[in-house]
Amino acid sequence: MANTHRFDYSRFVVQPGKKLHLADHDPSYTAGIADKEAAKESLLEDVSQLAAMQDVFWASKRYAMIIIFQAMDAAGKDSTIRHVMSGVNPQGVNVYSFKAPTEEERLRHFLWRPMRVLPAAGTIAIFNRSYYEEVLVVRVHPSYLETQPLTTTERGQGLGHIWQSRYADIACFEKMLCEENTLVLKFFLNVSRKEQRKRFLERLENHEKNWKFSMMDLKERALWDDYQQAYEEMLAATSTEAAPWYIIPADRKWFTRACVADIITSRLRSLHLQYPKVPANEAAALEEAKRQLQAEKNGDDS
Amino acid sequence: MANTHRFDYSRFVVQPGKKLHLADHDPSYTAGIADKEAAKESLLEDVSQLAAMQDVFWASKRYAMIIIFQAMDAAGKDSTIRHVMSGVNPQGVNVYSFKAPTEEERLRHFLWRPMRVLPAAGTIAIFNRSYYEEVLVVRVHPSYLETQPLTTTERGQGLGHIWQSRYADIACFEKMLCEENTLVLKFFLNVSRKEQRKRFLERLENHEKNWKFSMMDLKERALWDDYQQAYEEMLAATSTEAAPWYIIPADRKWFTRACVADIITSRLRSLHLQYPKVPANEAAALEEAKRQLQAEKNGDDS
Repeated sequence: MANTHRFDYSRFVVQPGKKLHLADHDPSYTAGIADKEAAKESLLEDVSQLAAMQDVFWASKRYAMIIIFQAMDAAGKDSTIRHVMSGVNPQGVNVYSFKAPTEEERLRHFLWRPMRVLPAAGTIAIFNRSYYEEVLVVRVHPSYLETQPLTTTERGQGLGHIWQSRYADIACFEKMLCEENTLVLKFFLNVSRKEQRKRFLERLENHEKNWKFSMMDLKERALWDDYQQAYEEMLAATSTEAAPWYIIPADRKWFTRACVADIITSRLRSLHLQYPKVPANEAAALEEAKRQLQAEKNGDDS
Repeated sequence: MANTHRFDYSRFVVQPGKKLHLADHDPSYTAGIADKEAAKESLLEDVSQLAAMQDVFWASKRYAMIIIFQAMDAAGKDSTIRHVMSGVNPQGVNVYSFKAPTEEERLRHFLWRPMRVLPAAGTIAIFNRSYYEEVLVVRVHPSYLETQPLTTTERGQGLGHIWQSRYADIACFEKMLCEENTLVLKFFLNVSRKEQRKRFLERLENHEKNWKFSMMDLKERALWDDYQQAYEEMLAATSTEAAPWYIIPADRKWFTRACVADIITSRLRSLHLQYPKVPANEAAALEEAKRQLQAEKNGDDS
């Protein structure tokens, strides 16, 4: 098992508290990898390593893991999740899509949605969008706050106060998780406006992809700059040493996938997990079981 | 509606971060109230005020509330909950008893249990025992940690580290709740060792009360001093301005009840809640509805 990273992904880590300009992050960056084929090979290797390591992760039950994906539409969240987790035992992985909140959810703390589905030790929860929408889509559409009763007091203090207070709550929440051995990995798939246009057109021109397009997508696209600003501020405010944000170039899907797979694999590898050892007294019982099974003639009950 | 408190309960508030001696808190204190009858009257008044205010709390849907009860056995948690909440609309109140955690719970963050059952805006969650057991019963019986996989890493750093880290997590959790309009009230019902003995004997001598007694109760009683120490440290470490602990004298049940009812009532009153106002355009529709109903002859369909 190679112990080196294929890409130097430290350049993707958002520095805590430092002002961030998405313009400095090239969505078409590929770390000098020439073509799709080269990345594909690396991805296949990571996917099989990831599967092997998730098996130890599951058996050892020492950590839980949350992997968050945030991005503009058509950045490749769904396909990245599908490709990267393809080799993994589904018993140890749950994917949660954060759609518009239900009434039950709107009436509660905005972090209740991730709280309800915290992963058990040994398992991975993948959030396809997440509680971060509460400082992204809600920030771009502040009228959504009208349906969230718990924010009424805060509204009186102005919108700016709400986002700052939510950043603080999120930091508290993730700190609390990390303290108790729940790892939090956060990926922002950074697609360009130009590439999004291309992918939208593909969805409109290819009948088999029509279902992926909604007129809402265009409306949100028109708010591109507002979203970029919301992302910039959120990323800088909520990236921490324990739970950093990674800005992953997303104009080349093959690069996105290889990169995400590599980061998850590296994180799991750094835990140095081992299969649980059977205590000495139980080991003797296992030996006895083995002896009994071997004594059976060809598996007959005789 | 009287705006004064019947008891000066500020003396019951635990000062954040200040060393605490339970010996300084008299379990038989009754604030100079002569007898049971005097307290009963006050309790009935508070119970009816509490019911009235919970109705506005429910209708206005601006806040949620968590009320935590912790205590040694036989301190009167169950009966206090029953008496104090007797007048309240059960639709807006849920009581959760924190028993020994299930496997599903043990495999997750120790705060997952309260997270799952966070109250919606307008509702009250009552915790009969709570996540604080994780720094009380588990502290007195550290072997319970063996069944909590997520603490394996921390175990390596020593037990002291675990309790400190849990205090910090709890502070984070409650801060996050208070930030978003979820109020947290915490009551420690302070019963004396002598009074517990008396109540245990009642349970053993009265056949109708036998079911309340378990041999486990005696085993835990034998660890009285360990529990007192765990409580002292926990109370000082987790009492905050936003979510203070109240040490309620619990040797006189009538005083405990009156006192708890009064504190909850005062807290609700301080929110200055009002029934939601109907917007002007809807008010006209209500007038029209009233007109139509009045036009009906004696409720006939004619």
